[in-house]
Amino acid sequence: MRVLGVDPGLTRLGIAVVDGGTGRAVTAVAVDVIRTPVDDDLAVRLLKVADGVEAWLDRHRPGVVAIERVFSQHNVRTAMGTAQAAGVVALAAARRGLPVMFHTPSEVKAAVTGSGRADKAQVTMMVTKLLRLTEAPKPADAADALALAICHLWRAPVRNRMAEAEARAAEFAKAHRARLAAAAAQARSGSGTVAK
Amino acid sequence: MRVLGVDPGLTRLGIAVVDGGTGRAVTAVAVDVIRTPVDDDLAVRLLKVADGVEAWLDRHRPGVVAIERVFSQHNVRTAMGTAQAAGVVALAAARRGLPVMFHTPSEVKAAVTGSGRADKAQVTMMVTKLLRLTEAPKPADAADALALAICHLWRAPVRNRMAEAEARAAEFAKAHRARLAAAAAQARSGSGTVAK
Repeated sequence: MRVLGVDPGLTRLGIAVVDGGTGRAVTAVAVDVIRTPVDDDLAVRLLKVADGVEAWLDRHRPGVVAIERVFSQHNVRTAMGTAQAAGVVALAAARRGLPVMFHTPSEVKAAVTGSGRADKAQVTMMVTKLLRLTEAPKPADAADALALAICHLWRAPVRNRMAEAEARAAEFAKAHRARLAAAAAQARSGSGTVAK
Repeated sequence: MRVLGVDPGLTRLGIAVVDGGTGRAVTAVAVDVIRTPVDDDLAVRLLKVADGVEAWLDRHRPGVVAIERVFSQHNVRTAMGTAQAAGVVALAAARRGLPVMFHTPSEVKAAVTGSGRADKAQVTMMVTKLLRLTEAPKPADAADALALAICHLWRAPVRNRMAEAEARAAEFAKAHRARLAAAAAQARSGSGTVAK
């Protein structure tokens, strides 16, 4: 499975493509940062982000897009811009019929370092090691995009197994409700017989 | 000038087209609400918003798009979704080369009611009156989209005059700096002559 990982942002958007192999094997295909000028209008910045991401989707043809989930940050304006950048990335993926998954920063950190509270240096170190890179990816946004793609690859099997288990449970509950309904109908027709 | 006004949202997005005439005359061309199902994935909802807005841009060919500026709300998740809906609207406009302007809720309320703290009922009442509508637009998101377009039409001349004044001031400052630099150069060459 090939994942496009995106650490969204307007000033710097981390973007990476990682291939998953058997087990936990992961290989970096590409990583970079898309930047847009602070002085540009918001709409123009969003257009530059969208065009940049479209070019990556064309070039690398991922099967899924993983985006870091944005929560409120200290600076509301920055958080809104980040959310909007994430939105146009999700839109670009949806336009191509690609599934889009969101992962929280702590899920990503936990996946690659084992701790949801790891700092940026630890994330970068583990990403460099896991992908057998000769040098650490820079800036942090690039490392985060790689970490996000790895997180997605490693969480996907767990998520699929959970979805299967949920589907089986729903199937069981449905069959159980049907049996209950049949029993109730039988009881009603039985009481009807008695009442006659 | 024809304005597309958008009160962004994922569950309900208010959208309206208003034409500006001479002075403060305004005419409603169309108003509606675009809805997306709460159960859909975020990316799919954003795609539905984008497709809906594109259809309005095709049909009504506005010259400018005005969007309500999103600030943090009580519910962070809702605020993020609203910001993302605003982002894909801005992107659709930017893709067509249309200017995009953001107005805050209080600017919109002040423009149509005279008070930045007006409630929804007051905004709806004034919009109905200003546009000479036979009945009040519903829901509130539709009325807000109309109010936003009116706000944009009425603020645009003020904004243009301010931009012109700023341009003149910048021109004046530039000329002033040039005169200062010329005087300084003359003073230096003068002192050079004395030192010789």
